[in-house]
Amino acid sequence: MAVEIERKFLVASECWKEHVVRSVQLRDGLIASSDRGKVRVRIIDDKATLAIKGARTGLSREEYEYEIPFEDAVALLDRHCAGAILEKTRFFVPNGDLVWEVDVYSGILSGVVIAEIELPAENIAVDRPSWVGIEVTGQEEYRKINMLSARLSGKQL
Amino acid sequence: MAVEIERKFLVASECWKEHVVRSVQLRDGLIASSDRGKVRVRIIDDKATLAIKGARTGLSREEYEYEIPFEDAVALLDRHCAGAILEKTRFFVPNGDLVWEVDVYSGILSGVVIAEIELPAENIAVDRPSWVGIEVTGQEEYRKINMLSARLSGKQL
Repeated sequence: MAVEIERKFLVASECWKEHVVRSVQLRDGLIASSDRGKVRVRIIDDKATLAIKGARTGLSREEYEYEIPFEDAVALLDRHCAGAILEKTRFFVPNGDLVWEVDVYSGILSGVVIAEIELPAENIAVDRPSWVGIEVTGQEEYRKINMLSARLSGKQL
Repeated sequence: MAVEIERKFLVASECWKEHVVRSVQLRDGLIASSDRGKVRVRIIDDKATLAIKGARTGLSREEYEYEIPFEDAVALLDRHCAGAILEKTRFFVPNGDLVWEVDVYSGILSGVVIAEIELPAENIAVDRPSWVGIEVTGQEEYRKINMLSARLSGKQL
């Protein structure tokens, strides 16, 4: 088990692109959820995981992640996910001691770009590069499930 | 991924006890569910697993099971399960080429006894020892989640 402390922002410009050091392709599907958390299957390049995330408390949430066989993840994404499969490219953008992750969605959430930063503790000050826009941590409309249903009902994100 | 083909019965007598070769203690909690399936965490003696079971088609369902660290399973059972934790002793009762599993529940489902048999194919004939009672495969009231809510609302099982 790990504790994930994460803050989430929109992007204000495309200047992050100048500082990318690496990127990965992600496919991500929600297998099941309850009021206590969510179970997701995820393929990151050629690696597959199953992740259980607890409910958020402040900026933190408990996270359990296990590597699973790639072919199981493909079958889970194909046959056992409750909603749409999310596809995105994650770009890694170092800044000081931390690394921003900029998620550029394709597929059903095409056009959505979210910058996230994972912190070693809740009270760490975040140095925001100029391309980082407004913070949306904890905002309901930027939860994946709500972005999906907004997109499915034709709303602008 | 495995395909689980299972039939489920009540017991007609306690004669199965004479043929038990082994037993294990199980604790089992539902982490989350959707119409496509369920995610459960399970501790069997000193081993812990995370299992995803798909919806049932006939007698079969897809099953994905992964071993996880014991301490993760304890935390998942304690903090991330949506309903009550089921506790049972599973007794293994060989009969011919197959092995019956007799689950004797304790805790919230105390008094419930279910005999299950896992089959290598759907069309395998099952030789029923005299202690095996009526078949309840696929019957809604014998799904764990329904037995639990019946018990919680004070109904006889």
